[in-house]
Amino acid sequence: MHDQVKLPVFNDIAAAADRIKGHAVRTPLLNSAYLDDITGCRVFLKPECLQRTGSFKFRGAFNTISSMTDDERKNGVIAVSSGNHAQGVADAARVHGISATIIMPADAPKTKIDRTKRLGAQVILYDRANEDREAIAAEHCRKTGAAFIHPFNDPRVIAGQGTAGLEACQDIVARGKTLEEVLVPAGGGGLASGTALSVSHHFPGVAVHTCEPEGFDDYRRSLASGRVEENPVEGGSVCDAILTPRPGEIGFAINSRLAGEGFAVTDEQALQATAFAFRELKLVVEPGGAVALASLLKYRDRLAGKTVLLVLSGGNMDPEMLQRAADLPEIR
Amino acid sequence: MHDQVKLPVFNDIAAAADRIKGHAVRTPLLNSAYLDDITGCRVFLKPECLQRTGSFKFRGAFNTISSMTDDERKNGVIAVSSGNHAQGVADAARVHGISATIIMPADAPKTKIDRTKRLGAQVILYDRANEDREAIAAEHCRKTGAAFIHPFNDPRVIAGQGTAGLEACQDIVARGKTLEEVLVPAGGGGLASGTALSVSHHFPGVAVHTCEPEGFDDYRRSLASGRVEENPVEGGSVCDAILTPRPGEIGFAINSRLAGEGFAVTDEQALQATAFAFRELKLVVEPGGAVALASLLKYRDRLAGKTVLLVLSGGNMDPEMLQRAADLPEIR
Repeated sequence: MHDQVKLPVFNDIAAAADRIKGHAVRTPLLNSAYLDDITGCRVFLKPECLQRTGSFKFRGAFNTISSMTDDERKNGVIAVSSGNHAQGVADAARVHGISATIIMPADAPKTKIDRTKRLGAQVILYDRANEDREAIAAEHCRKTGAAFIHPFNDPRVIAGQGTAGLEACQDIVARGKTLEEVLVPAGGGGLASGTALSVSHHFPGVAVHTCEPEGFDDYRRSLASGRVEENPVEGGSVCDAILTPRPGEIGFAINSRLAGEGFAVTDEQALQATAFAFRELKLVVEPGGAVALASLLKYRDRLAGKTVLLVLSGGNMDPEMLQRAADLPEIR
Repeated sequence: MHDQVKLPVFNDIAAAADRIKGHAVRTPLLNSAYLDDITGCRVFLKPECLQRTGSFKFRGAFNTISSMTDDERKNGVIAVSSGNHAQGVADAARVHGISATIIMPADAPKTKIDRTKRLGAQVILYDRANEDREAIAAEHCRKTGAAFIHPFNDPRVIAGQGTAGLEACQDIVARGKTLEEVLVPAGGGGLASGTALSVSHHFPGVAVHTCEPEGFDDYRRSLASGRVEENPVEGGSVCDAILTPRPGEIGFAINSRLAGEGFAVTDEQALQATAFAFRELKLVVEPGGAVALASLLKYRDRLAGKTVLLVLSGGNMDPEMLQRAADLPEIR
């Protein structure tokens, strides 16, 4: 696909930042004295759980809809998602005053379905086992003329997600600090590739480490082999927000050039990071959004002494998930 | 007491802000599109749960120790607290390289005792039923020459807590906004009176509303009667962070001049606000720290249309407390 599509560049992120201004939250850049103490790092946290709809996804969705012509978006937008992208697209469409249709699996968490509806979207449920969501989406686009918004394999989406990294870099520069390591959760790689563009612009040569659950570390393996690798299975991790079968081609074209080594953590380590965020950072971070924190805690010996930017990418989870995380041995 | 003690003024807060700079977290000022939607207000959130040690208490403790002469603090500091003040004093003492002794009830939550010890403090446990904590503290001060840090009835403590409101006012001014209502959790009233000084400096005539649990609404009743009123009982609310027998005299001398009407919420409403913060704001806010949010949700009809500053004062709670909050009917 990236042969036909123009790869996004840093200027696209700067333009996206202008578009989302006043709509997306400019999330703060936080520090934790305790996290610095136990890792030996200087850590900057970018808490995208504090973004509208509870994850960074609003940025890419809003930038994409803003980039469309009136004609392109007049029949609304459509997305396929069981969670964070669903809410990001629904909210961005609502702000633009256009309709949104979200194709969601019937067994998606009720809270995520409810919240997507609450944002005004029409939700079409499908049966994972017997229906093809791509076919449903294509049929809906054909019938209604709605514009499809891919969760990650779209230059406009990547440019939007890159604004989180842009803000973080600007804030780090404003504080007179530098940056040595960047850790970002990776599903399809929209956030990771957008972050890589922002980081390499402000801090040339600084690598972004993609962070994933073990068993779903397609990005880590793809970066190692230099070509798009697939996961053997599609589901079965608590990190539901970042389970994709393979890296998106556009993002991978960027990351294969700019990203460093990928990290992977166990589900238990992701959950322990979720509990750590609750106890020590006082932030609600879902396991998939906590894999970068989990990676820092896991690889702290190797990262000690470094200045690290760490993205906490989302916080949409039920209290039961937090309880499950808190029941595990406490990581310190 | 306020006959003998010089009341803190705004300049004391400005001086405190200089002292804590680079040590305390300058917590961000946040907005929530959803909270604005359902209340009809423009709400600015000051999340002091993101402060060092998980509550605003570090500010006052650090300012107090910084204000002492080397001679005054050379034998360390001592505090009586079962929770947030304990951790704030312990951490502030650690940064100053002096010893801290905290008198804590033996039945305080294990996590709070552990965390106070983790910060390097010596913890002396006492038996609530059979021992007098004031006597233990006085005896310890006599023996060691340690300086006692009151949780709220001290001009240095009030000036430190006022820096949270100062930062919020500065950020609101920087955004070109104004302010109409301020809601602050109140125990002894250190945070509330410090906030009142900051707010009245930047936005003359804007009143601070103290927020408390019903049955422990000594501040509300004191503001109504114009004199210090007591609570009938000392314990029994989930809002353990803000249960004090009566307003501190110094803070009350300020608030009786500057504060507006006090608000009170039920324990259930405080817990629902804790669950709301988890689900919608992605912030960990303990019930006592969530009473201002609970008050906004309770009195939203009356506050609709206003620009509101709301302090979320702390987030030190166990996951079990969150589960208890999440099991209640969801407030929307």
